[in-house]
Amino acid sequence: MEFETLSDMKRTNMCGELNASDENKEVVLMGWVAKNRKLGGVNFVTLRDRTGIVQLAFNDSTDKDVFEKSEHLKGEYVIAVKGKVLRRTPENVNKNMPTGEIEVFVTELRVLNSSETPPFYIEENIDTNDALRLKYRYLDLRRPDMQKNMMLRHKVTKIARDYFDANGFLEIETPMLTKSTPEGARDYLVPSRVQQGKFYALPQSPQQYKQMLMLAGYDRYFQVVRCFRDEDLRADRQPEFTQLDMELSFVDIDTIININEGFLKKVFKEAMGIDIETPFIRMPYNEAMNRFGSDKPDTRFGLEFIDISDEVKNCGFKVFSGAVENGGSVRCINVKGLGNKLSRKKLDALSEYVKTYKAKGMSWIVVEDDSLRSQITKFLSDDEINSILSKTDAVPGDAILIIADKNDVVYDALGNLRLEVARQFDLIDNSKFNFLWVTDFPLFEYSEEEDRYVAKHHPFTHPVDEDIEKLETEPQNVRAKAYDIILNGSEIGGGSLRIFNSDLQERMFKALGFTHDEAWERFGHLMEAFKYGTPPHGGLAYGLDRLVMIMAGCDSIRDVIAFPKVQTASELMLKSPSYVDKKQLEELGIEITVPVDDGEKENSDNE
Amino acid sequence: MEFETLSDMKRTNMCGELNASDENKEVVLMGWVAKNRKLGGVNFVTLRDRTGIVQLAFNDSTDKDVFEKSEHLKGEYVIAVKGKVLRRTPENVNKNMPTGEIEVFVTELRVLNSSETPPFYIEENIDTNDALRLKYRYLDLRRPDMQKNMMLRHKVTKIARDYFDANGFLEIETPMLTKSTPEGARDYLVPSRVQQGKFYALPQSPQQYKQMLMLAGYDRYFQVVRCFRDEDLRADRQPEFTQLDMELSFVDIDTIININEGFLKKVFKEAMGIDIETPFIRMPYNEAMNRFGSDKPDTRFGLEFIDISDEVKNCGFKVFSGAVENGGSVRCINVKGLGNKLSRKKLDALSEYVKTYKAKGMSWIVVEDDSLRSQITKFLSDDEINSILSKTDAVPGDAILIIADKNDVVYDALGNLRLEVARQFDLIDNSKFNFLWVTDFPLFEYSEEEDRYVAKHHPFTHPVDEDIEKLETEPQNVRAKAYDIILNGSEIGGGSLRIFNSDLQERMFKALGFTHDEAWERFGHLMEAFKYGTPPHGGLAYGLDRLVMIMAGCDSIRDVIAFPKVQTASELMLKSPSYVDKKQLEELGIEITVPVDDGEKENSDNE
Repeated sequence: MEFETLSDMKRTNMCGELNASDENKEVVLMGWVAKNRKLGGVNFVTLRDRTGIVQLAFNDSTDKDVFEKSEHLKGEYVIAVKGKVLRRTPENVNKNMPTGEIEVFVTELRVLNSSETPPFYIEENIDTNDALRLKYRYLDLRRPDMQKNMMLRHKVTKIARDYFDANGFLEIETPMLTKSTPEGARDYLVPSRVQQGKFYALPQSPQQYKQMLMLAGYDRYFQVVRCFRDEDLRADRQPEFTQLDMELSFVDIDTIININEGFLKKVFKEAMGIDIETPFIRMPYNEAMNRFGSDKPDTRFGLEFIDISDEVKNCGFKVFSGAVENGGSVRCINVKGLGNKLSRKKLDALSEYVKTYKAKGMSWIVVEDDSLRSQITKFLSDDEINSILSKTDAVPGDAILIIADKNDVVYDALGNLRLEVARQFDLIDNSKFNFLWVTDFPLFEYSEEEDRYVAKHHPFTHPVDEDIEKLETEPQNVRAKAYDIILNGSEIGGGSLRIFNSDLQERMFKALGFTHDEAWERFGHLMEAFKYGTPPHGGLAYGLDRLVMIMAGCDSIRDVIAFPKVQTASELMLKSPSYVDKKQLEELGIEITVPVDDGEKENSDNE
Repeated sequence: MEFETLSDMKRTNMCGELNASDENKEVVLMGWVAKNRKLGGVNFVTLRDRTGIVQLAFNDSTDKDVFEKSEHLKGEYVIAVKGKVLRRTPENVNKNMPTGEIEVFVTELRVLNSSETPPFYIEENIDTNDALRLKYRYLDLRRPDMQKNMMLRHKVTKIARDYFDANGFLEIETPMLTKSTPEGARDYLVPSRVQQGKFYALPQSPQQYKQMLMLAGYDRYFQVVRCFRDEDLRADRQPEFTQLDMELSFVDIDTIININEGFLKKVFKEAMGIDIETPFIRMPYNEAMNRFGSDKPDTRFGLEFIDISDEVKNCGFKVFSGAVENGGSVRCINVKGLGNKLSRKKLDALSEYVKTYKAKGMSWIVVEDDSLRSQITKFLSDDEINSILSKTDAVPGDAILIIADKNDVVYDALGNLRLEVARQFDLIDNSKFNFLWVTDFPLFEYSEEEDRYVAKHHPFTHPVDEDIEKLETEPQNVRAKAYDIILNGSEIGGGSLRIFNSDLQERMFKALGFTHDEAWERFGHLMEAFKYGTPPHGGLAYGLDRLVMIMAGCDSIRDVIAFPKVQTASELMLKSPSYVDKKQLEELGIEITVPVDDGEKENSDNE
């Protein structure tokens, strides 16, 4: 098949832009054939580009050659047409289509390219398996919903850049070939050829570089920047992901929060037309844990925790009294008005569910009109039962779901139970965008695995001033000048004020278990730098993929990343990673210590 | 030393913004102490932030404690001050300083941090060795000229994003962990942990991904994107560099050129206040070679090539006649009016200079008032001499510099001689920004090393339509739909229309020496993709670092990159690359085959 060229044809309009006001205009359009159907001697071709679709009409007034050519158009053919915009007769108006009031009567048609039948339909919301979608990502990305996601992502980053630029931030690029540091996730390494035996690491974040920029007097920095973590993948994790990263000098937490509330307000308004209320609620970490069992609570619904430890600490039910005795707690949620929907079977299933989170099980009291349905009331006195019902404001129809355990387990199990109940009973208003700052995080958390305290955020986080004296004595009680921004129960960003004093930074490393020598060996450049006039500074980084995912209403960040990787960290279209030539490894001074699948190697890139 | 905190102090102004219109305003400023000197009982402290400097005054009206504190301020201390803007008396106005009409009478002073004496002065244009500058990059970047460069770079990229967004381009991120492909420079590899034995490659450019985006219907894509090439470094090369990359569908070369001329006009106007004339001259590759011996000619000065092959082809000087006889040529430049500055010594030096470019030497004829000065006229007849003088329009005072050799050598040697003469005699107007499109490149160039044709740009470049039939028969005569954008003799960008047909792409790979199987093994994904409705498309990519370097008037791209690498590909501040833990390599299934410098390993990060 011989194809035509554009030669002097110039597009005048995009397909989705045309409407009744364009009547009688001569237009040139280019795009993909979505459909071609014949109705009563007329060929109706739907033409698609990234802005939408428009109907082309070829009828008995059409030039005979053009009409015949139009009969051969198949789905995904690439064409250019010249024609006249005509209003459709009232009975032919399609109100479901933005361009449904008009159609284009075609006078010239060029077929620029053909297409084989695609492996799946180029339509919204198709049910195609992920591997096929990702292998033919160029076709998957042609689907209108994926195009909307990519356009939303472009818009969000553009608005971010406009906003931060207008607020005095400079976008400064930091290196991708950087240095492997301990503390944190696993690095992706890049062998050096010039200095064989040595490696670069791809950045997990530009943390140290952006702090150096504050030291260098740049005052306000931001960057939309690729970051890397070589961790096992989950649904919302990718080996490479994008941060909207910023750092500011001479500021307090309020300033950082105000600037970011301004950003989120603007981006939701301009990208989605949604007004969000500022200021957002700020909630200390301890409060978030006590009310929701989570440092990223979803506040779009209630089901808040109620602590009934006092009510049951002396009761005869050992699961309860024992938990309190051992320093744990007994907490519950009141599932208001849904008791009659919580059958024994459902309750047993929820009891199984919480075991995923290390709880030994779940207790319940369903308040019925004249009685209680419960597996535990037999172990409790009437007074104890009444005090529980009173503490939880329980009335007939309510169900009290109770977890008793160590506090960590209670938070985790009851927090997840809360989410699961909300999902099962559809208690979440998906039209809401609930923002929340969580503040006053603990500076450290204890790592059983490493048998030492590790930084909850990272080792550059500034302790709350009045807690500094506890760094050596009660590290577990030191709070951080850190803050996370939560949207609908997801952490979309986080940050902190940073240590900017060499001595304090060294005390921090000591608290993390480093000797003086180790600390200087690994982070000497930073502690040395702090000696040359470091301003107070702090910052924040958003996970851009996750933010856009939530804005787009998607369930997976893959749907807002053009060419994502699957769970094996492969990209299925170009097929990376792949075997490489031996010569390449020799030049790098490395060799593979594992057996290579020769069959796959030879055919790895073969279709 | 105990430092103060900002607590409730909020900055009202930046240092460099203040002027006489701010008289009597109460301001809060924060920044670095540039200088502190005592004059007649008054302490004058110069305070610096990224916007500039301002003078703070502490005198006998100043609160005693504040005054005393001010006496202890040293260079690079970080301070916050509250004070009142006062006009200086006329005799104290400093016209060399934008804020020189005012000073700030300080009422409150907080010392936020101290500084040791920096290893070099924080001033413009200091003469410090590069290694020291890069080790203390955070101090080097504090210098006002480096800050200006970074701010210019921010501005250029911001303007680019505004412009391309306004012209319908979507910024879409492409992967950094991608696939190693042959054809091109050496890849940086990233070992996969999940799929041991396999590797990702860092992208040399997002070429294939951006073509896939055109296939997917995104119509206009752009990205400011990091790219990587593991090649030995030169002054203007870095292992990682930034491209301003774009791709467009349904366009011809004119559209791409128009859009980019619009961009360059805008960016020079808005970032530099400079008007540049559009449209730019377009010059076919052959013309550029014949006139300047270069496909990136510097057109800020003349000294164009004059071909005197015809005039000397039969002459008795074998160097000349032999060159023509062997298919080469004899070409010269006329250095007008500078003959008297070209002493024998200088001419001999230039003759040595051209040997770097494989010329055997340079001949010359200096036209003096009554005679010729030349080492070769004795081999030429009077007629031959006269025809040379006539062809070159030579008059007394001129000097004709001649190279005779194979054409490649003539182009290279005489082209570089032209530049060298211009530099030596200061013929280049550095205030000029001369843009030029070079077009109609050859599609292939012959690689002696590989003994085959390789792609001059890349294997996806579309041949000129009427040359397609020569792909198999005369590859050396196939022109490409490619274009480079040249600024002052540097290639700042380049691009092409792309092949968008599977069969033509396969013919292209065949012409490059691939078998059918090899082509499909390596680029099957692309040729397969082309079967599903590929629009005609093309694009362009700028080397952002180089563009900004030229705009900033710098000699090295290091001066427009925040954290560049040196010739050994090391970054000297954080010290990458570095040795890593054995455990990290084990997890990746690789090992080092070269001896590791244990001494360096142990101390590699120690200060």
